[in-house]
Amino acid sequence: MSRIAYVNGRYTPLRDAQVNVEDRGYQFADGVYEVCEVRGAQLVDAPLHMERLQRSLRELRIRMPMTLAALLVVLNETIRRNRVGDGTVYLQITRGVAHRDHHFPPDSTPPAVVVTARHLDYGSVDALAAKGIAVITVPDERWARVDIKSVSLLPNVLAKQAAHEKGAKEAWLVDREGYVTEGSSTNAWIVNDQGEVITRQVDRAILRGVTRTVLLKLLADRGERLMERAFTVAEARAAREAFVTSASQTVMPVVRIDDWTIGAGKPGKLALALRAAFHRYSDFAGNAKISKEIP
Amino acid sequence: MSRIAYVNGRYTPLRDAQVNVEDRGYQFADGVYEVCEVRGAQLVDAPLHMERLQRSLRELRIRMPMTLAALLVVLNETIRRNRVGDGTVYLQITRGVAHRDHHFPPDSTPPAVVVTARHLDYGSVDALAAKGIAVITVPDERWARVDIKSVSLLPNVLAKQAAHEKGAKEAWLVDREGYVTEGSSTNAWIVNDQGEVITRQVDRAILRGVTRTVLLKLLADRGERLMERAFTVAEARAAREAFVTSASQTVMPVVRIDDWTIGAGKPGKLALALRAAFHRYSDFAGNAKISKEIP
Repeated sequence: MSRIAYVNGRYTPLRDAQVNVEDRGYQFADGVYEVCEVRGAQLVDAPLHMERLQRSLRELRIRMPMTLAALLVVLNETIRRNRVGDGTVYLQITRGVAHRDHHFPPDSTPPAVVVTARHLDYGSVDALAAKGIAVITVPDERWARVDIKSVSLLPNVLAKQAAHEKGAKEAWLVDREGYVTEGSSTNAWIVNDQGEVITRQVDRAILRGVTRTVLLKLLADRGERLMERAFTVAEARAAREAFVTSASQTVMPVVRIDDWTIGAGKPGKLALALRAAFHRYSDFAGNAKISKEIP
Repeated sequence: MSRIAYVNGRYTPLRDAQVNVEDRGYQFADGVYEVCEVRGAQLVDAPLHMERLQRSLRELRIRMPMTLAALLVVLNETIRRNRVGDGTVYLQITRGVAHRDHHFPPDSTPPAVVVTARHLDYGSVDALAAKGIAVITVPDERWARVDIKSVSLLPNVLAKQAAHEKGAKEAWLVDREGYVTEGSSTNAWIVNDQGEVITRQVDRAILRGVTRTVLLKLLADRGERLMERAFTVAEARAAREAFVTSASQTVMPVVRIDDWTIGAGKPGKLALALRAAFHRYSDFAGNAKISKEIP
């Protein structure tokens, strides 16, 4: 079955899904996106994704192209038309099509909306999690507003490619002061030798990951000791455990950072426990919250 | 007459000129561009633009989609089909279309190529230059590799919009140390009270503007005193003259920086002289160099 995309009001085969060359997403990276996990054909944590989407749009002063309710209909219809049971749905909203000029086009310019969905073999993600992944560290060369989930992802692309070429699955980005900000498409976490869970505080230097937010709640519910603060690469190397979080990977154990083996070179106990607990939590969240909590 | 665009091998009306939603330029800002001045239906400084294009592609490891000779044919044909006498031609090359994944797609993925051209009323640009423009200063929030002419332009968009809303034509970007890097789509220059011309040295903090390069040569030929070094906002406010350079504006006098009037609030003598000289130089360069100097 060929994949189907939603593009500005129409559902169309992905191979024919097109946007104008003067879409500002194409010429200026002037747009935002979300990637949501799909489980059992249901959106997971949709309210959190929609909240973040609205924040990103607000920060860039791009207007919502339709009501949240209508947007959710489109997301669900794209999932349905692609027959995605387990997978992800991708949503991109840009400032629309206008003759090329850096400043914003007239307010009457309609934002552009693209939605795609794809199957993801979560079995292979689970298999990866059972072994754990390697990460590398690279300088964080991104712009100053990565808290906005924009499509301005070129530095992330280059970081991920650098990881790929070293046989690693992720690159952790390190700021000028030597602190890890986050991964190129994940948030970064460590567990120190006192068993404290550490992840960087939310500010303009990281994206407020939805999985991160959900995991913080889960950690609190479990009574784990948590510190939201920056950690150095040296701290990470010496950590008992490390892991990354993202919508498609949930909690993914890290067993190597550059040339340093983390813990015993196997996924940490807490990481695996959180991964298991997260899935139960997601199942609950996915089914219970969508229709009720979105205004 | 409707405008015509070149898109991946075809010439098509601009309104129908489309790229796939999974073009990496759209989802990742994973592409580069050039804007060339067109005078008398001729490309101006084409060899310098092509040299910079190749550098940008090399830095991002995107391959040239065709030979330089073929690319020049496309640029000239797009100019011809749009009947552009005086204007600009826009070229964008991205890493092509691939299912969304941050790391590079397979090497076999063809890069995507888009070319558009438009008429520009250089009379109105001249009228603007006769009055001079206002600029504002804003923090430089861009990524660390702005020497690559990538489409990762969201911070530039926001800076230009901020200028626009304050009745200014350009925003000068200021680094953490208080030095001006460049404008959101121009290079920045001042002339101090000793008559020395100052513009930031080329490094990763600025784009190597083609007009900048040509003007450096022109300044040397005229025997002007030149310093390639960073200057502060305070130095700029106290400057005798200020101006910006870009392919479409050539040398554009600046008469206000934030709330500070520059010089006498009129375009500086040197800026106007350089503007006049630049046009003669461009006319020469445009007609003489293209076919001969590109390998």
